[in-house]
Amino acid sequence: MTFKDEQLPREKVFRDPIHGTIIVDNQIILDLIDTPEFQRLRRIKQLGTSSMTFHGAEHSRFGHCLGVYEITRRICNLFQRNYPQQAPQDGLWNDQERPVALCAALLHDLGHGPYSHTFEHIFHTDHEQITRRIITSESTNINRILRRVGNDFPQKVASVIDHTYQNPQVVQMISSQVDADRMDYLQRDSYYTGTNYGKFDLDRVLHMMRPVKDGIAFEINGMHAVEDYILSRLQMYLQVYFHPVSRSMEVILDHLLMRAKWLYQHPSQYQPEFMPRLLMPFFNGHYDLNDYLTLDDGVLTTYFIHWMNSSDKILSDLAQRFINRRPFKSAVYDQQTRFMLPKLRELIATAGFDVDYYTAVDSSYKLPYDTYNPQDSKPQTQIELIYPNGELTELSQVSTLVASVSGREAGDQRFFFPREMLTQQNDIEIFEPIYEAFQHCIKNNQVVAN
Amino acid sequence: MTFKDEQLPREKVFRDPIHGTIIVDNQIILDLIDTPEFQRLRRIKQLGTSSMTFHGAEHSRFGHCLGVYEITRRICNLFQRNYPQQAPQDGLWNDQERPVALCAALLHDLGHGPYSHTFEHIFHTDHEQITRRIITSESTNINRILRRVGNDFPQKVASVIDHTYQNPQVVQMISSQVDADRMDYLQRDSYYTGTNYGKFDLDRVLHMMRPVKDGIAFEINGMHAVEDYILSRLQMYLQVYFHPVSRSMEVILDHLLMRAKWLYQHPSQYQPEFMPRLLMPFFNGHYDLNDYLTLDDGVLTTYFIHWMNSSDKILSDLAQRFINRRPFKSAVYDQQTRFMLPKLRELIATAGFDVDYYTAVDSSYKLPYDTYNPQDSKPQTQIELIYPNGELTELSQVSTLVASVSGREAGDQRFFFPREMLTQQNDIEIFEPIYEAFQHCIKNNQVVAN
Amino acid sequence: MTFKDEQLPREKVFRDPIHGTIIVDNQIILDLIDTPEFQRLRRIKQLGTSSMTFHGAEHSRFGHCLGVYEITRRICNLFQRNYPQQAPQDGLWNDQERPVALCAALLHDLGHGPYSHTFEHIFHTDHEQITRRIITSESTNINRILRRVGNDFPQKVASVIDHTYQNPQVVQMISSQVDADRMDYLQRDSYYTGTNYGKFDLDRVLHMMRPVKDGIAFEINGMHAVEDYILSRLQMYLQVYFHPVSRSMEVILDHLLMRAKWLYQHPSQYQPEFMPRLLMPFFNGHYDLNDYLTLDDGVLTTYFIHWMNSSDKILSDLAQRFINRRPFKSAVYDQQTRFMLPKLRELIATAGFDVDYYTAVDSSYKLPYDTYNPQDSKPQTQIELIYPNGELTELSQVSTLVASVSGREAGDQRFFFPREMLTQQNDIEIFEPIYEAFQHCIKNNQVVAN
Amino acid sequence: MTFKDEQLPREKVFRDPIHGTIIVDNQIILDLIDTPEFQRLRRIKQLGTSSMTFHGAEHSRFGHCLGVYEITRRICNLFQRNYPQQAPQDGLWNDQERPVALCAALLHDLGHGPYSHTFEHIFHTDHEQITRRIITSESTNINRILRRVGNDFPQKVASVIDHTYQNPQVVQMISSQVDADRMDYLQRDSYYTGTNYGKFDLDRVLHMMRPVKDGIAFEINGMHAVEDYILSRLQMYLQVYFHPVSRSMEVILDHLLMRAKWLYQHPSQYQPEFMPRLLMPFFNGHYDLNDYLTLDDGVLTTYFIHWMNSSDKILSDLAQRFINRRPFKSAVYDQQTRFMLPKLRELIATAGFDVDYYTAVDSSYKLPYDTYNPQDSKPQTQIELIYPNGELTELSQVSTLVASVSGREAGDQRFFFPREMLTQQNDIEIFEPIYEAFQHCIKNNQVVAN
Repeated sequence: MTFKDEQLPREKVFRDPIHGTIIVDNQIILDLIDTPEFQRLRRIKQLGTSSMTFHGAEHSRFGHCLGVYEITRRICNLFQRNYPQQAPQDGLWNDQERPVALCAALLHDLGHGPYSHTFEHIFHTDHEQITRRIITSESTNINRILRRVGNDFPQKVASVIDHTYQNPQVVQMISSQVDADRMDYLQRDSYYTGTNYGKFDLDRVLHMMRPVKDGIAFEINGMHAVEDYILSRLQMYLQVYFHPVSRSMEVILDHLLMRAKWLYQHPSQYQPEFMPRLLMPFFNGHYDLNDYLTLDDGVLTTYFIHWMNSSDKILSDLAQRFINRRPFKSAVYDQQTRFMLPKLRELIATAGFDVDYYTAVDSSYKLPYDTYNPQDSKPQTQIELIYPNGELTELSQVSTLVASVSGREAGDQRFFFPREMLTQQNDIEIFEPIYEAFQHCIKNNQVVAN
Repeated sequence: MTFKDEQLPREKVFRDPIHGTIIVDNQIILDLIDTPEFQRLRRIKQLGTSSMTFHGAEHSRFGHCLGVYEITRRICNLFQRNYPQQAPQDGLWNDQERPVALCAALLHDLGHGPYSHTFEHIFHTDHEQITRRIITSESTNINRILRRVGNDFPQKVASVIDHTYQNPQVVQMISSQVDADRMDYLQRDSYYTGTNYGKFDLDRVLHMMRPVKDGIAFEINGMHAVEDYILSRLQMYLQVYFHPVSRSMEVILDHLLMRAKWLYQHPSQYQPEFMPRLLMPFFNGHYDLNDYLTLDDGVLTTYFIHWMNSSDKILSDLAQRFINRRPFKSAVYDQQTRFMLPKLRELIATAGFDVDYYTAVDSSYKLPYDTYNPQDSKPQTQIELIYPNGELTELSQVSTLVASVSGREAGDQRFFFPREMLTQQNDIEIFEPIYEAFQHCIKNNQVVAN
Repeated sequence: MTFKDEQLPREKVFRDPIHGTIIVDNQIILDLIDTPEFQRLRRIKQLGTSSMTFHGAEHSRFGHCLGVYEITRRICNLFQRNYPQQAPQDGLWNDQERPVALCAALLHDLGHGPYSHTFEHIFHTDHEQITRRIITSESTNINRILRRVGNDFPQKVASVIDHTYQNPQVVQMISSQVDADRMDYLQRDSYYTGTNYGKFDLDRVLHMMRPVKDGIAFEINGMHAVEDYILSRLQMYLQVYFHPVSRSMEVILDHLLMRAKWLYQHPSQYQPEFMPRLLMPFFNGHYDLNDYLTLDDGVLTTYFIHWMNSSDKILSDLAQRFINRRPFKSAVYDQQTRFMLPKLRELIATAGFDVDYYTAVDSSYKLPYDTYNPQDSKPQTQIELIYPNGELTELSQVSTLVASVSGREAGDQRFFFPREMLTQQNDIEIFEPIYEAFQHCIKNNQVVAN
Repeated sequence: MTFKDEQLPREKVFRDPIHGTIIVDNQIILDLIDTPEFQRLRRIKQLGTSSMTFHGAEHSRFGHCLGVYEITRRICNLFQRNYPQQAPQDGLWNDQERPVALCAALLHDLGHGPYSHTFEHIFHTDHEQITRRIITSESTNINRILRRVGNDFPQKVASVIDHTYQNPQVVQMISSQVDADRMDYLQRDSYYTGTNYGKFDLDRVLHMMRPVKDGIAFEINGMHAVEDYILSRLQMYLQVYFHPVSRSMEVILDHLLMRAKWLYQHPSQYQPEFMPRLLMPFFNGHYDLNDYLTLDDGVLTTYFIHWMNSSDKILSDLAQRFINRRPFKSAVYDQQTRFMLPKLRELIATAGFDVDYYTAVDSSYKLPYDTYNPQDSKPQTQIELIYPNGELTELSQVSTLVASVSGREAGDQRFFFPREMLTQQNDIEIFEPIYEAFQHCIKNNQVVAN
């Protein structure tokens, strides 16, 4: 049985706020969506703590994965219509690649867990590796369905996510500077946050794409549309993904999990009122795929709700700050003012806070800043434009706009601290000088030297 | 201290996908939003199981409550600009009512719990009553903040939600045929589901509103805008809120909770591997406000995830169907075909399913159908139009369109059953005649007599 | 050479605010768009005088025609994907019909002239007949291009517009209760007016369409989407197309053209300062296709601008009212109050106005009200739903909503008169009693008996 | 009588696709809108020849002027709410400035004529000067209405447009780097073209505005929103306003008017079949305000339609190219390839075209490129950001993004020529070598040296 044999007699349509309709016309795709592994993505927020800054953005990874599938499907259609392969290795599109492209698109985020970034930081998991395991382990429903196409098909799909698949066009559809993944999430996150920053002209970008020997290029006529996409991406990072309040909530989450792990790893010092059964494999460092797939956002917040009543003051306080949304405050610092941080930490300690849990600097939560940097050594980091006569040129060579923003550095370095340090605490006279001293070091949300 | 004393020097803005900006200009409102009771609404989905039909609609009650506040604020502004009170009892707008209107709008859904409708069905809670308790109990943060306006202020706010507040204009802003609540959720649910059905011309409807002696009326010129709103509402019910798949998931949820309650109430017959501590007060029928406020969607699904491994086959199977989204199928029946249901149930039982847990009829899950029925005996069920000379008329008297849809009956009666009954089960030869007989009774998704 | 031979190597894309992209993949279509006959549609407003009520709606018929083409193209794609013909006469879609469907869609409004409705009323032209002549006359560019497909192709295309084409699926795509024409203009006019009334779920309606033996039916599952479309259409008529101010401007336009025609037909009584050369063939009743194709909105308003300075007082006054947007006022009347009209006309005459030019009743400007009336005797007036087993049923048989609005009568009967009759004219004491008497007969914008 | 005395008892609402509602609450504003001078803006397209590239963008200047008024009104409201003047000269907002701000906003484009840019080039008119004359000439309706506020009020309004008004906040609202004018047209042109390039977060930018001593500044928190606006503006120029096809149509229009002017100024050589009465004052160089206000887009195209049949071959050919939309082709050239232009012109002349009328270079149609260049010597060219403590800084000092695009040079230099030069003309064997030679000099839409 091949992929084509499982074509549906009639298309099935999912309504989607971003793409209008998402069209499935193959039973394999339908069955993949219906697996527990894929349905679990409904319970994992796409943007983690950002929903606490942008209240509209509570959407899950489920819709995003469908969206990446849909964009990939449209690219395949356009390639098949306008650039069908005439002879092997002619650099045009071979529609036999459609099944692996569609499946890789749909499944590329399958290994994400709750609050992935922070969770990985504390428990040393790796969502990309887990994605590949879900696809290639014979025990999963995903794997069982993929094998209907062929025994080596799961491995093929995994290799696309791995960037090792032999057809670079397929790899770049899913993962490159202008891929279906980024194109979907920029539009989707923009829609749900209620900002316009991520809106670019998706239709036009798709129409400008063209298969070439080494992957995918963009018609020179479409340069401005690609510029617009690059700027949208930059704007989304600056305005949404790097928002200081979201990062602050992530700091609290990180410290909360760190505290819990420490407590459960030191049972002699701590008599837990409640055992977080589903997290124990991660505290212990021995977990299997099933343990991982059991977790979701709700499981984590349920434990946090329990921890709000813990007898450990730090655990309960951090849990309350997270659940009730009480972000830390933050101030920007730079090379000139970095020397002030020890002094600030000292004041915070004097005020009674454990600085390991109640302060943080940005650099320990370095976000994966998605700059466009064509000089980068990694593969797939270039955007190629193609002239009518077939000549290729790298985008920043012809776009002064993109050249000027390429490799631009991430926003800022921030020092996070409890908001109590900034509020007047007139009732506790004894602490007043501390707060005064602290507030003396922060001006216009920046650390100042003194 | 009065509400006005706490006016912010500058407006604070929340970005919202539906209203663009939500503007807060008073410290009281800000503080109410920052309470744990209000932040908890972030963890309760607005549409419950509908997000399993419309994957885009995963938004929480938090944004909706802000939206109702914002619409109410705009109505107050319009009333104050265009119809300010000149003399007591002149039927125009007294802007002293603004604080109570804004607070009631913001807090009107505070008592909602996870999957409210089903939860109330099983555990006999009442979200409206709980809303009032959160507002009036001296132990809550909400109450403490409201009391800054005056000791009787919490009671005033609660009375708006109760419909007993003395100013009918305020009551109707929050709760009437065309209120801020409905206007927000129709637009919001429409946006998130990605349908257009709920979109009506909010701006125009607001501009057509007018305070009158007994509440709020609409200028006769705006009749078509109100008609459009009524039709949007009707369409959202037919297309979104009544969707058979969402109802099917709700049937599973209901039966799952029913089973769990029964098991935990019969400990002799059941040795639970896991104790749902946060649900026990509800299984036992002894819960306080705190127990209620601890619950959220994530807590419930966390228990369901545990139950998926229960040794009780029904509990584990229903939990799996819910978590992995395996809805029951359903068929429409009517007066003529209702007599077939016992036969269908019998076939289902013969196939090995406990019909108490594996079948349902719609009528036991009667949805609160929001028809416009001016003949209704309840108060606030009329929409009044006002002529330039001040005469009032009820909408359906002049709108043949509304007259024709008023009091229209809800969609359909459905019989729900396991999808297994419709699939071929060739491997189990023995059951074949049962399936065949069953499938003989269902045609075009309808129960047929035979 | 056939249509297929002229397929473009790569699709050409028009950006469109309504459909995002309009895709042309055939040279014939491109060449048709580039003809003077088609480009002329850029100079004819889609909504005529409505742009004077809804200032945003200044769009031309050009974009609409492209939109109808695009919707038809999408229907063909869906039919070809999901319901391809297997055998002759099997009621499925024969993709050989695509060329005639696309060309008929693109060209269906080619014969529209400036302010069509009123122009036809005064000059007895017929835009449908002219459309067919443009397509079938050998002298036109349109005809020359169509003949590249075959000598009988122009006639075929014309017969679709005529409803006489042998394939009812093609005819109904272009002209039926739910056709590409209506679907485009409802969405387009809604977008440009800035209202939401015309927005329905186009994608879903298209996906529910299905070729059947006698034309096109809709899957029963899509009933609510079709209901929504019917209601959108109704709302657009009530709110936009029937707006009293637009009708009032149309009354003025009608009377202005009527006056001009009368003056130029009575040269002995009138020495025109200016000869409207391009209109003379129509004043004289002897015009050919070229005369007709020379006209556009700008030509007409240019003459009106000249007429503003005419020595004929009625001509110059009506021209000024039209150009400077000074609509007549209007009042609703009915069977009970109709008897008042002669009295009102008398008062208007006494105030110095020629009632033939300064009053009108609605019935002489009867708008083509697009009700859905399945009992209608004309063909193609039914909307058929199809069950999974192939049974058909007429929409209003199963939709109580549609049943209740079917055949609903048009909005209102209006009497139009100069706004001067309603304003105080204190300076001209002598007329005061007239105005007073007149104003006594109008209450709440309605004619009242007295 | 003051402006305030004419406040309307209830707000009047215009529905607008961009801003939702445009609210008028003063009789003066209403009366200004109802003047012939203002209504005339309905007959002048906002984007001139761009509607021939973006078919959706056929909107007039009328809606834009209402939009600029609306944005200004919102700024006044925000300033009055958040930064009301406490003492004279304190740099905060004095709401007494509202009337002059609103009127200047509404009227700022009153002097625009048909295809302003080209018309001014040929006839040496100046739309800004004419705007001021319409406002200050006692003969206009506009002036008469403005004088109701005070005899010096027209002069005040004109001085805002002149940038000489004493309050810099008012001047900068209407005309500065981030003014109501630009904010409206970017959003509006984006909506009508169907592109996203011009969409920025209007609400957020407005909320970040703040009156300061020397004008208007933006809160430092809003930097990214202002960056987004600057990028939107840049994108709209690159993608929409500078589109080569629109410029090409403008070249044709320019040459057509130039030819007509020459012909009518040399009557001995030309016996016109038709006298363009309304243009004669401009051909003669003696026109008054009335002559100017009589013109609109329709008047011009009506003359072009007549000229299509002129016996002057150049006039009739250019008129046909414009009316039937047959743009010239164009190729980019630069310093290195500029030397080729004489050779290209020679080939074009040899092929039989008059190069004065059939070629053009971009530089003669230099578009007013709206770069942000803080080093510029003109006033009001800076965007100031303000820190919480009141310190000001120029945008490009803190935004590396804006710094990188500031003062960026306009798109390209283009050489325009008849499309016939690029098509094969096999039938005229004699010309073949000319076309071949010509085509040899154009590659990838660029002039190449050879």
